[in-house]
Amino acid sequence: MAIIDEALSIIRRGTEEILLEEELIAKLKEERPLRVKAGFDPTAPDLHLGHTVLLNKMRQLQELGHEVMFLIGDFTGMIGDPSGKNETRPPLTREQVQENALTYQKQVFKVLDPNKTKIMFNSAWGNKLSAVDLIKLAATHTVARMLERDDFHKRFTSEQPIAIHEFLYPLLQGYDSVAMQADIELGGTDQKFNLLMGRELQKQTGQRPQVIITLPLLPGLDGVKKMSKSLGNYIGINEAADQIFGKVMSISDETMWLWFELVSFRTIEEIKKLRDEVNGGMNPRDVKFLLGEELVARFHGTETAKQARENFIAQFQKGQVPEDMPEVALHAGESGMQIANVIKAAGLSESTSEAIRLLQQGAVRINGERILDRNLLIETKKTIILQVGKRRFAKVTLE
Amino acid sequence: MAIIDEALSIIRRGTEEILLEEELIAKLKEERPLRVKAGFDPTAPDLHLGHTVLLNKMRQLQELGHEVMFLIGDFTGMIGDPSGKNETRPPLTREQVQENALTYQKQVFKVLDPNKTKIMFNSAWGNKLSAVDLIKLAATHTVARMLERDDFHKRFTSEQPIAIHEFLYPLLQGYDSVAMQADIELGGTDQKFNLLMGRELQKQTGQRPQVIITLPLLPGLDGVKKMSKSLGNYIGINEAADQIFGKVMSISDETMWLWFELVSFRTIEEIKKLRDEVNGGMNPRDVKFLLGEELVARFHGTETAKQARENFIAQFQKGQVPEDMPEVALHAGESGMQIANVIKAAGLSESTSEAIRLLQQGAVRINGERILDRNLLIETKKTIILQVGKRRFAKVTLE
Repeated sequence: MAIIDEALSIIRRGTEEILLEEELIAKLKEERPLRVKAGFDPTAPDLHLGHTVLLNKMRQLQELGHEVMFLIGDFTGMIGDPSGKNETRPPLTREQVQENALTYQKQVFKVLDPNKTKIMFNSAWGNKLSAVDLIKLAATHTVARMLERDDFHKRFTSEQPIAIHEFLYPLLQGYDSVAMQADIELGGTDQKFNLLMGRELQKQTGQRPQVIITLPLLPGLDGVKKMSKSLGNYIGINEAADQIFGKVMSISDETMWLWFELVSFRTIEEIKKLRDEVNGGMNPRDVKFLLGEELVARFHGTETAKQARENFIAQFQKGQVPEDMPEVALHAGESGMQIANVIKAAGLSESTSEAIRLLQQGAVRINGERILDRNLLIETKKTIILQVGKRRFAKVTLE
Repeated sequence: MAIIDEALSIIRRGTEEILLEEELIAKLKEERPLRVKAGFDPTAPDLHLGHTVLLNKMRQLQELGHEVMFLIGDFTGMIGDPSGKNETRPPLTREQVQENALTYQKQVFKVLDPNKTKIMFNSAWGNKLSAVDLIKLAATHTVARMLERDDFHKRFTSEQPIAIHEFLYPLLQGYDSVAMQADIELGGTDQKFNLLMGRELQKQTGQRPQVIITLPLLPGLDGVKKMSKSLGNYIGINEAADQIFGKVMSISDETMWLWFELVSFRTIEEIKKLRDEVNGGMNPRDVKFLLGEELVARFHGTETAKQARENFIAQFQKGQVPEDMPEVALHAGESGMQIANVIKAAGLSESTSEAIRLLQQGAVRINGERILDRNLLIETKKTIILQVGKRRFAKVTLE
């Protein structure tokens, strides 16, 4: 029982909910590799730190000896949005899916153990489903039950359209669990409804229901909204070491403690000790260094991580990055804003022409990196640390 | 144009709605055989007079030179009720469907011209549908649109469960129209929603939308509820001539006029003339004779019809069936009631033992037919004319 208690305590850390914990205990007692499912969208292979909350949990389960199934949900992805309303969701070809899968693998194997990870595609069974199979699947749940899902409920009550096929997708996700004979499924708290579908469908087909484990959503750089690519408040797994380090340094102290909890591998005790030290007068910036270094190390190795820290100190601290630099929010529109205009709008130059001159002189840096391209377009939904000369700084967010 | 006007007037007779009439006119002007779809349930091959409202219209369209497609909806029938909640709807086997189809054909060819009727099965294209095809079909409509259907709306607002696959069936029925390239679809007024689905899906797939023609529902023997087998208020196409004649004679005068309008082939002018004669003092029973004879003739030929009328007169009228016999409603429960108990409960004997004696003496008739079996079970939901001796009558309904 000591081993199971230990496993349970590892699994529990940082999770939002385990449903049902007694079923998990029963499965752990069987001392066999449990089949752990986690589903990923085939359209967005650019993983960020938010995804690692899930990946870390998968890694922990691997280390506990379980079989991790990394499911790429390409079946519905290859259909696209059949209602034709969402033009940004065209159907993916088999080739695109394969390509995305490779990009995924490169990224996830920075966290997961490739030898213990099974990459699966739900098109393998989805493409074999007939209309009759799908009708039978649809018969297992009621319209009212489906409208309990938070987003469906909101859209229904606010009279926004829900296409009927959208009701079929949670069922197909649930069916994946049946096809995979999953013992456990992991997902974000926003996936709970779909994870429960898997449990229900497994019960209905005579399988033992999967245990579902939900994980909290990681707040982004802004500390408020869920980290996501579309909000621009993210750290990509594939970003350069200096960039990751710089971004970690840009988060608030409050967000830092949340990230420690959710993405650091430090023990709860270590984190508590750090908190105590900050309360005792230690500069929180130095604790942020530790977090930045840990995260860079995870994706680029310890040596690069140390280097990133040194680079940051060299470029920012030695150039006296002020503790509290002015924060500027600019309305840039969808197409972004040219760097010279950003400099002027942030109040770091008198005019656009002065800004262009400063750029030509090599006096402008973004996140510590010298910018020489006067036509550089700064994307919207990004936060940058803009530096002009040695002393003028601004934390600029393009909205 | 004269021919089109004439065709239109034939098509219009007795219809509830033609949608859109201008599209029908345009199609008629093309002077080609139009593809006329009418769908039938594969589970209930026992056709009754109510079905003939539709069949008559199909026959008229055949006579106008159009191609009638008699569609047997076996695709969903072979799935049964996948939710398992409706135990009375087990899946049909291919053999059962074929058998039912033959039974259907025998019956419908009493009305339709076999040489101009194409029997079709929607399993022909349904079985080829993949889950992906069905998802795409489901994407064409919203949940809100589907909840507009009267029965769904009622169930949803009264919190009765609607299984998700029930939303797929109207879409599949609509898809039939696409697969069949229907120019016209006929159906009861209660089918209007489903017929509209066909129009919409045809438009979405680039076909010209079918014209929909709805026909009123025929009231049953009770004159109130829609004629249906489950309510027992029906005249089966396959019933014996005397039985059909007797049942027609049992309807109210009001119902008789409705039936004239909906199932008689007499012209509007002829019917008006009959009404005038009754208003002028003619016994409505004599007009009912005409209707009874016409309907028996349709299913059994003119000779048999005359005979049925004579039999009726011989057995009932000569036996002095009273104009107004007492009407008795009995609560019989689901399993029906034994004849002797019915006789007593209807007040035609003092006791059950007297009733048994009367049966043994051959003094009991049901709908004019002598009953000798003292164990005969009268089914619930039936109305019979019970006669004991020469003069005691009762119109008995078992509820």
